[in-house]
Amino acid sequence: MNYFSSNFKLGILGGGQLGKMMLYHTRKYDIYTCVIDPSKDAPARLACDEFRVGDLLDYDTVLDFGKHVDVLTIEIENVNIDALETLEDEGIKVFPSAKTLRSIQNKAQQKLFYRDHNIPTADFSRFAYTSEIEEAVENGGLSYPFVWKSARFGYDGMGVKIVKRYTDLIDLPNVECIAEKLIPFKNELAVIVARNRNGDLKTYPVVEMEFHPEANQVEYVICPARITTEVAKKAELIALKAASAFKHVGLLAVEMFQTENDEILVNEVAPRPHNSGHYSIEASYTDQFEQHLRAILNLPLGKTENKVAGVMVNLVGAENHEGNVVYKNIEKIMAMDGVTPHIYGKKQTRPFRKMGHVTIVNADISEARKIAEKVKRTIEVISD
Amino acid sequence: MNYFSSNFKLGILGGGQLGKMMLYHTRKYDIYTCVIDPSKDAPARLACDEFRVGDLLDYDTVLDFGKHVDVLTIEIENVNIDALETLEDEGIKVFPSAKTLRSIQNKAQQKLFYRDHNIPTADFSRFAYTSEIEEAVENGGLSYPFVWKSARFGYDGMGVKIVKRYTDLIDLPNVECIAEKLIPFKNELAVIVARNRNGDLKTYPVVEMEFHPEANQVEYVICPARITTEVAKKAELIALKAASAFKHVGLLAVEMFQTENDEILVNEVAPRPHNSGHYSIEASYTDQFEQHLRAILNLPLGKTENKVAGVMVNLVGAENHEGNVVYKNIEKIMAMDGVTPHIYGKKQTRPFRKMGHVTIVNADISEARKIAEKVKRTIEVISD
Repeated sequence: MNYFSSNFKLGILGGGQLGKMMLYHTRKYDIYTCVIDPSKDAPARLACDEFRVGDLLDYDTVLDFGKHVDVLTIEIENVNIDALETLEDEGIKVFPSAKTLRSIQNKAQQKLFYRDHNIPTADFSRFAYTSEIEEAVENGGLSYPFVWKSARFGYDGMGVKIVKRYTDLIDLPNVECIAEKLIPFKNELAVIVARNRNGDLKTYPVVEMEFHPEANQVEYVICPARITTEVAKKAELIALKAASAFKHVGLLAVEMFQTENDEILVNEVAPRPHNSGHYSIEASYTDQFEQHLRAILNLPLGKTENKVAGVMVNLVGAENHEGNVVYKNIEKIMAMDGVTPHIYGKKQTRPFRKMGHVTIVNADISEARKIAEKVKRTIEVISD
Repeated sequence: MNYFSSNFKLGILGGGQLGKMMLYHTRKYDIYTCVIDPSKDAPARLACDEFRVGDLLDYDTVLDFGKHVDVLTIEIENVNIDALETLEDEGIKVFPSAKTLRSIQNKAQQKLFYRDHNIPTADFSRFAYTSEIEEAVENGGLSYPFVWKSARFGYDGMGVKIVKRYTDLIDLPNVECIAEKLIPFKNELAVIVARNRNGDLKTYPVVEMEFHPEANQVEYVICPARITTEVAKKAELIALKAASAFKHVGLLAVEMFQTENDEILVNEVAPRPHNSGHYSIEASYTDQFEQHLRAILNLPLGKTENKVAGVMVNLVGAENHEGNVVYKNIEKIMAMDGVTPHIYGKKQTRPFRKMGHVTIVNADISEARKIAEKVKRTIEVISD
C-alpha cells in the first residue's frame, strides 16, 4: 500500500496533545487521518481530516471508528481493548496491538510480563484489593516501606504512593494493586525504542529525568543522559529486550531506574510517543512523532541520534493559580538561545496541570541545562 | 497583547503549502488562525481554526476577511493591495505592509526601489509594453542578449525569458516589462532576513541554489553556501540593507547573483517564507515559518544558525507523466541518512509541477550533498 498517494486512512484513538503533535507529520506526509476523542475541544480536532467525538472506552464506538480506517494507533492507553481485538480479527492493523495494550494497561500484568521475560524490574507482590496488603505485612510477606501502585489507570503520579507505615494505607482506594520494593536510585532514565512491522529496531539515546518532588511529574528531561557509556548501553539493551518481548510495533518508551550499584530496573513502559521524547522535536534527526508513524506504517526508521543536545522543561500550572491561563514572561524565554515553547492550548490552569513544555537545544549540553534552569525561573503559568 | 492566552486572531491570505507549514507553528503556539484561499481544497484548510474560500484579488473579500483578524499576513504576493491599505487605515496590522507589497508585486517598481536605495542590482530598462523593446534596440538604447521579465505575476520562471535575438521577442506577451542586463554569474545565492516590529534583525546563513536548466526551478538549495566568508558577508549585508530599506516586518527572502568578479546583485525578493528556506525546518535552530510568526507578532527572533548542514531537493513531476501522482521509491529515500520528504498533497502530477520537497541534513555538508544526489536519482514523481 502506498500511503503517499492512495486512499489510505490512519486512525488515532485520542485527540490530546500527543495526537496533535502526531498530526504535524501526517500533514507533512499528506496522510489522511481520522481522530476520535471524548472532548469536542480536543487539541487534535484541528489538522486531522476527520474528527469524531466519542468514548474511547466504549466497545461499539471504538469498533465503529476502527472499521473505517486501515491502520489504527493510540495516543492514550485507556481504550477499549476488546474492540481492538475484534478489529484485529477483521484485518485492521492495530499498533500497539491489543495484546500489548492488555499487558501494559494493568500494572500488575505489566510487572508479570517483565518477570516472565527476564526483564529486570523491582520485586513486587500483587493484590486483588489494597485491603489485602495489611495481612501480607502481618504475615511477614511484605515490609515497609514499599511503593503502592493501583493496577489500573495510574497516570502522572496519580495512583502511586510511597507507603512507609500502616496509616499511609488508610486513604488508598481499595482496588487491584501491587506493592513494589522501594528502590533507592541514582537516576531515573528512559529509552525510546522504535520498532516497525518488519521488526527493524532503533533506540533513541538514553535520557535522564528529574522529577518535581511534590507533583511527581517530570521537571527536566535531559538528552543525552549524563551517565557512563556502560550504563547507557545496559539501559538500551534492556529497552530493546522489552520492545522485542512485546513484539511491539510503534514507539515504546521504557522508563527505568539506575540503582545505586548501577543496576537497571524497568519501572514502566508507554507504547506510544512520550513526554520523555518531546526533546526530539528540536534535538533529534527524527522527531519521535514522525518515528512512530514510520514504525506503524512499516516505513524505514529514521536516524535517532541528536543533532544537538536537548533539555525539556514541563510547563505546569503554578501553585495558588486557578483560572484563565497566562504565560507570564513567555517573550523573555523566547529571547533565550535555542528555546522553543510548546503551548498545549488548555484555557484553564490549575496547580501542577501540564500546560505545555519548553525545549532548549544547544551544541553544549551543560549550556542547555543552564538555560533550562533560567527558563524554569523565568516563565510562570499563572491565572489572570 | 498576549498571543498565547487572549482572543487574538491571526489571518493568512493564501492557504497553499507555505500557509500549511506556517500552521505547524500556530498550532505549536496555540495561536488562533484564520485562512482564506480561492480553492476549497487548499492544503491549509486543515489545521487552521477558521477557513474561508475567496478570491484574494477581490477588494471586498480581502477587506471582509482582514477586518475579522488582529494581524494579517500573506503566503502569496498576488493579493488585493487596495484592501490591505484600507485595513491598515482601520488599524489592522498587516505584514508585509501594503506599501512593501506594492513595491514588490511589480518587478519594474521593485527594480526602481533597489536603484533608489543604492541596493546593487543588474542594470535594466523599463517598458510599458513588450512591443516598445524593438525600438529601443534599434535606437541603440538596448542590445541583445538581455533578460525579459514581465512586470507582474511572474512566478517560478514563468514571465522570464532570455532574449538573444529579435525572434525571441515574438511569442512574448505584450505587457509591462523590464529588459535586464544578462549577468554571467558564478552562483545564485539567497539570504533570508527576519525583522520584527521592534526593528530587530537577523539573517539566516547564505544558501546556494542550483537551478534545473530546463524548468528554471530550483533543484538544490545548499546551506550553508560553499562560498568565501567575504562573499557571504557581502551578501548578508546587502540582504539586511534591503530589509531595512523596505522597513519590512516578517521574513524577506533575498535572491542574489554572485557575479564572476564576486559582486553581489539582488535579483528579486519575496516578503514571506520561501522555498530557499525550507531546509531550515530540519537544519536550523529556528524554522523559517516559526521565525516569520515571531517577527510579525513582535516576539524575540529565534537563533538563525544551523544545527547541522542542510540540502533541499524540490520534488517536481517527472517529464512524460501526467495524472494521479505516485511517489516511486519514497520508501528508499526514507531509508537514507537524515532524509525527510515533505509531500504537498497535490493529487495530480504534471511535468515540472512542484509536488513537494526533500530535506537532507548531516553534520557534514559534503555528505549531505552526496545523499541529496542519491535522493534525486532514486525518487520519481510519476503518474499511476
